[in-house]
Amino acid sequence: MSQPTTPIRVGICGVRGYSGLEAARLIAQHDGFRLVTASSDALAGKTLRSLDPELGEDAAAVVVGHNDTLAAAKAYQAELMLLALPAEPSAHVTPALLEAGIRVIDLSGAHRVRDVVAHTMAYGFPPIAAELQAEAVYGLTEWCQPDALRAARLVANPGCYATATLLALLPLHQRGLIAQGTLVVDAKSGTTGAGKKAQVGLLHAELFGNFYAYRVGQHQHTPEIAQELSRAGTPMELTFVTHLLPVARGILVTSYFKVPGCEDAHEAARRVQDALREHYDGSHFVRVVDAASEAQLGAVIGTNRCILCAAPDPFGKRVVVISVIDNLIKGASGQALQNANLMFGYPETAGLQLRGGAGVKA
Amino acid sequence: MSQPTTPIRVGICGVRGYSGLEAARLIAQHDGFRLVTASSDALAGKTLRSLDPELGEDAAAVVVGHNDTLAAAKAYQAELMLLALPAEPSAHVTPALLEAGIRVIDLSGAHRVRDVVAHTMAYGFPPIAAELQAEAVYGLTEWCQPDALRAARLVANPGCYATATLLALLPLHQRGLIAQGTLVVDAKSGTTGAGKKAQVGLLHAELFGNFYAYRVGQHQHTPEIAQELSRAGTPMELTFVTHLLPVARGILVTSYFKVPGCEDAHEAARRVQDALREHYDGSHFVRVVDAASEAQLGAVIGTNRCILCAAPDPFGKRVVVISVIDNLIKGASGQALQNANLMFGYPETAGLQLRGGAGVKA
Amino acid sequence: MSQPTTPIRVGICGVRGYSGLEAARLIAQHDGFRLVTASSDALAGKTLRSLDPELGEDAAAVVVGHNDTLAAAKAYQAELMLLALPAEPSAHVTPALLEAGIRVIDLSGAHRVRDVVAHTMAYGFPPIAAELQAEAVYGLTEWCQPDALRAARLVANPGCYATATLLALLPLHQRGLIAQGTLVVDAKSGTTGAGKKAQVGLLHAELFGNFYAYRVGQHQHTPEIAQELSRAGTPMELTFVTHLLPVARGILVTSYFKVPGCEDAHEAARRVQDALREHYDGSHFVRVVDAASEAQLGAVIGTNRCILCAAPDPFGKRVVVISVIDNLIKGASGQALQNANLMFGYPETAGLQLRGGAGVKA
Amino acid sequence: MSQPTTPIRVGICGVRGYSGLEAARLIAQHDGFRLVTASSDALAGKTLRSLDPELGEDAAAVVVGHNDTLAAAKAYQAELMLLALPAEPSAHVTPALLEAGIRVIDLSGAHRVRDVVAHTMAYGFPPIAAELQAEAVYGLTEWCQPDALRAARLVANPGCYATATLLALLPLHQRGLIAQGTLVVDAKSGTTGAGKKAQVGLLHAELFGNFYAYRVGQHQHTPEIAQELSRAGTPMELTFVTHLLPVARGILVTSYFKVPGCEDAHEAARRVQDALREHYDGSHFVRVVDAASEAQLGAVIGTNRCILCAAPDPFGKRVVVISVIDNLIKGASGQALQNANLMFGYPETAGLQLRGGAGVKA
Repeated sequence: MSQPTTPIRVGICGVRGYSGLEAARLIAQHDGFRLVTASSDALAGKTLRSLDPELGEDAAAVVVGHNDTLAAAKAYQAELMLLALPAEPSAHVTPALLEAGIRVIDLSGAHRVRDVVAHTMAYGFPPIAAELQAEAVYGLTEWCQPDALRAARLVANPGCYATATLLALLPLHQRGLIAQGTLVVDAKSGTTGAGKKAQVGLLHAELFGNFYAYRVGQHQHTPEIAQELSRAGTPMELTFVTHLLPVARGILVTSYFKVPGCEDAHEAARRVQDALREHYDGSHFVRVVDAASEAQLGAVIGTNRCILCAAPDPFGKRVVVISVIDNLIKGASGQALQNANLMFGYPETAGLQLRGGAGVKA
Repeated sequence: MSQPTTPIRVGICGVRGYSGLEAARLIAQHDGFRLVTASSDALAGKTLRSLDPELGEDAAAVVVGHNDTLAAAKAYQAELMLLALPAEPSAHVTPALLEAGIRVIDLSGAHRVRDVVAHTMAYGFPPIAAELQAEAVYGLTEWCQPDALRAARLVANPGCYATATLLALLPLHQRGLIAQGTLVVDAKSGTTGAGKKAQVGLLHAELFGNFYAYRVGQHQHTPEIAQELSRAGTPMELTFVTHLLPVARGILVTSYFKVPGCEDAHEAARRVQDALREHYDGSHFVRVVDAASEAQLGAVIGTNRCILCAAPDPFGKRVVVISVIDNLIKGASGQALQNANLMFGYPETAGLQLRGGAGVKA
Repeated sequence: MSQPTTPIRVGICGVRGYSGLEAARLIAQHDGFRLVTASSDALAGKTLRSLDPELGEDAAAVVVGHNDTLAAAKAYQAELMLLALPAEPSAHVTPALLEAGIRVIDLSGAHRVRDVVAHTMAYGFPPIAAELQAEAVYGLTEWCQPDALRAARLVANPGCYATATLLALLPLHQRGLIAQGTLVVDAKSGTTGAGKKAQVGLLHAELFGNFYAYRVGQHQHTPEIAQELSRAGTPMELTFVTHLLPVARGILVTSYFKVPGCEDAHEAARRVQDALREHYDGSHFVRVVDAASEAQLGAVIGTNRCILCAAPDPFGKRVVVISVIDNLIKGASGQALQNANLMFGYPETAGLQLRGGAGVKA
Repeated sequence: MSQPTTPIRVGICGVRGYSGLEAARLIAQHDGFRLVTASSDALAGKTLRSLDPELGEDAAAVVVGHNDTLAAAKAYQAELMLLALPAEPSAHVTPALLEAGIRVIDLSGAHRVRDVVAHTMAYGFPPIAAELQAEAVYGLTEWCQPDALRAARLVANPGCYATATLLALLPLHQRGLIAQGTLVVDAKSGTTGAGKKAQVGLLHAELFGNFYAYRVGQHQHTPEIAQELSRAGTPMELTFVTHLLPVARGILVTSYFKVPGCEDAHEAARRVQDALREHYDGSHFVRVVDAASEAQLGAVIGTNRCILCAAPDPFGKRVVVISVIDNLIKGASGQALQNANLMFGYPETAGLQLRGGAGVKA
């Protein structure tokens, strides 16, 4: 598959939100894509410049209302739409876009969970088009068949927590390294993960210096993680709990489990670390480090990286695996672009070799 | 036991550190104690005013060098010494203070872990006086016999992480609610927990917006927690992992376990929550809340409180218990004063009814 | 004037906001006041416990809607109402409360600015009752006549920025130490200063790591500061600019001016520092420190203090004065209580000897 | 001047510090430069990978000790050395590097201030080589003669505060828009500005939620700013005061002054804003925005941009100008690369079209 000779025409639905805006920024720096239309009810009629004047020529684009998404996508001959919307509007707009011959990467959860009951409990509405649930390629890029992405009409871009968790656990579960009934996943996310919602609970004055767990036992990414683990091995029970970190960006996930038949935690951790290294050898974006404390937010913020590390816990005879990502990049818009690169024949890393470090630690 | 008629004369070793200074501030607001001497090599010769001018009349005290601690304690007729030092100097100074008839509350780890091997591995030196390890009362106040504290010469004040963890887990383990082999404790602490050390890794520029796990599988509070759990029930394996939160104060601990014989997570969580409520009914400082997200740092910072909450995780058939404290107050100096109150016949809450909220959330 | 023998019955209008809640917390720890009623449309029908369970017996109070404020104040025989509302509703509710014989401390700007045009420009509506503007005692406590407070029906509690600025500048302007036309005031406030409003611009994700100036040339505290300066000396032009600091609490104000007839900045700073020391000698809450860098947020957060320091700028031949307060305490509810103490015959410091340090720096 | 056909060979002295590391990262993403040697006493013998594994092929470079800088620069045939050192070691190493035919960009203050007394007071030592002070090109890129940079052996890279201040004030002073005796500059910087020093005062636990002014009347950038202003117009008195912001990166400078002969602040601000727009029309990195609150840290962090805005203060009849930069990029290493681009014939923007937004606000 050769690279396109002219930039692919892309649209963004929900450009005002954090991942929609991040997608616009990434596209502005990618030679192979061109932002031709964007929608947002709150911004309808304004230019993208009002959101971020650094979007280059794209900044002149006038945002349309959500209901005009399809018409605008057609009028501007979009070849790809990125849906950075809540799940329900994403589910509603997707069929018509696909019917119009436009490929879709859905950053919402609308097309991730195939089990109808699990989907309905997680998102509060039943799947709109069950056949699309089945058709959608789950876009955890490192685990996708390149051919599947190349051919995909619809990509279900993974959730931010799911991305960090699955990149750590899939190679392990695939190799039978996670003992059934032992998996605990303790996840922490920065506040952009909660979205750009005008809620008192998300005010700076409420969250500064604060920290807490939320949606304990009820997080909508749990069935998504369970589903994908079960596709890589046997069905797997897991405990998954999320906390709100008082930083803007970043997810750190700490996973705990026992290795079947291995009571020696040091040996178990070595096997896990080896599996991670083996699996991600040559990976562009996933890196395995030697010390758990190197897997830190500061090393991934602003990039499409995921950093992983396994360490032994001899007291509990468990292995601990840390994974970190930038929730808005590898956890959302960066991974969407990584998928788009493969869908359209660009190198996987095109537009994603982002300089880390800025803004968090020097 | 009646209250003292004149304030008890107290000294602080290591007054420059975060918990030493916090202890000085708490004493300054407690009518029943009087700070008569303080030591710190870095501050020797200076007044306490140079640390905090709001220490009242105590602020005029001149700090002595660490080697003069004993002489000063005698000269100023201290009745109680608070040791806010690293473990090794604490261990060295304690015997002579006790011999001089001065009671000691040791905020370091020097007298907490009775097993010689475990102590040595945790602190890097063998116990200095094994008989003192045996004699020391482990000062998790809510779990102390009041008579034992009243009579104690030496109180081993619990570690900050251990306090948050044990207040949650002890009533549960005592009631057989924690299934062996299932306990995972994921702990997060603010940066005062790392101490006032001039290290590049602790600079604001390094930690702002950052987050990571540290000492995975090697934290020195693990044997302390394991020891105390085993005193409340059968010996218990646990996994305990700590993370550094980019806030100044506060510890939040998320504990995960299964309830023996109870596969229904909702039922299990109810039994755990009921046990917590029953156990801490009437407690001055420990509060059990209904929603896990209410157990937040913002609700305890600046106070001697511990807030607890149990919640079900139906996916993993586990119970999740959240506990939060201010690491410098309930996790160190506040609990030391709570112990001192009981040692000297004051009400448990004297000087500890602190107004929360300030400085973190409004 | 002797102290009351039973606690004064107090009500709070607008108890959900940051200063309303802070007032409730301060009253809960003050033996001389009792919270008997509280209003808030958002909380109507709920108990105060839902806001903060640590409000003691007051926590059981059921919040009434704003329209029921007067009826509740009468029914519960309130002797004092604290208005922690926006200016316009404060202006509307005040006359009826006063008519019912209830004393009022208005924390809003409704009764601070006497010039009708300036008031209208600052607050967007003309004064509701011009005679109350004239009657109101401007409650910058250190500058009030004790007799005036004792007799006051209505106290206009100063704005947070105005408090920090005026405590620094009033003694200097009174002594003729500020050269006309040279005064520049650069102010910075934490995010609680913006109020508890559900606005995207105030989200943690927007403000984390961010900093900017706002309402440049248009801040509503400018006429208030100008008015009070002119009452202490000649009318004074000033430039006053505010910035939003990414912390929850605290105001730091940097004031710049020349001392008339004094080109030597060192001499000028000495005269200014001497004036500050002389004026606030014996003050309970205002402290003058030797080094400008000691006048820091960390030294006042959680307290009713104001810290001041003057320093020379030899390059510009100006004096620089730093002032810091906690915006919710000395800048709002703490000062309201300080005023209430004097209105009802309590010692000025009753209930306000708050321990600093917690939550910001150790 | 044509572009080089092979990458220019660059060395960095002081690669462990924040601006040294940032320079290494920028070079790693710049096709026209190649990092061939780096020095740091603390890192001597280690690879750059230990600092940041994402430095690409450069990450394999072994760091030499400071004393080996010259030998390594020669051995590796460096054509350009970036000195990211304190002023005194920079001053000492510069002459030998120049003598060896290696061009130098000095990020320290060693070659910025020409007046011997002012230099000595600012940096604590007299100039080492006065003729180099005279020869050095002051590298505020937007104000440099391209020919001068092309020919320069030694560039004195401006201080971070000076960059933000001068980009705002130079076009105004040049046009006579700043009235003598009225200029006040209130500056605020994130904590990376203090350098990577193991000092208790810079710990996260000390600075979290804190804010204060430092070096009032004594900041070493004052003579640098005064010197450069005087080169663009008449000598200018100014007051310059710095504050430490509790964020990792970013500088915001608020400048206050009167426009000669213009009492109408609105008219004055228009003239100033017009002058800024006119001067920076077509500038790659300096942008003038309409609203002062848009000139925020979040809009520049991670980029080489400077954002400027003028606004009127009608109360004080002054103009207020806000300027913001990322202190480590436009305030240090980014500007050094911008200078290096022009020194070696690359486009000014090569390697500096950095994506903003990441890590601070979404």
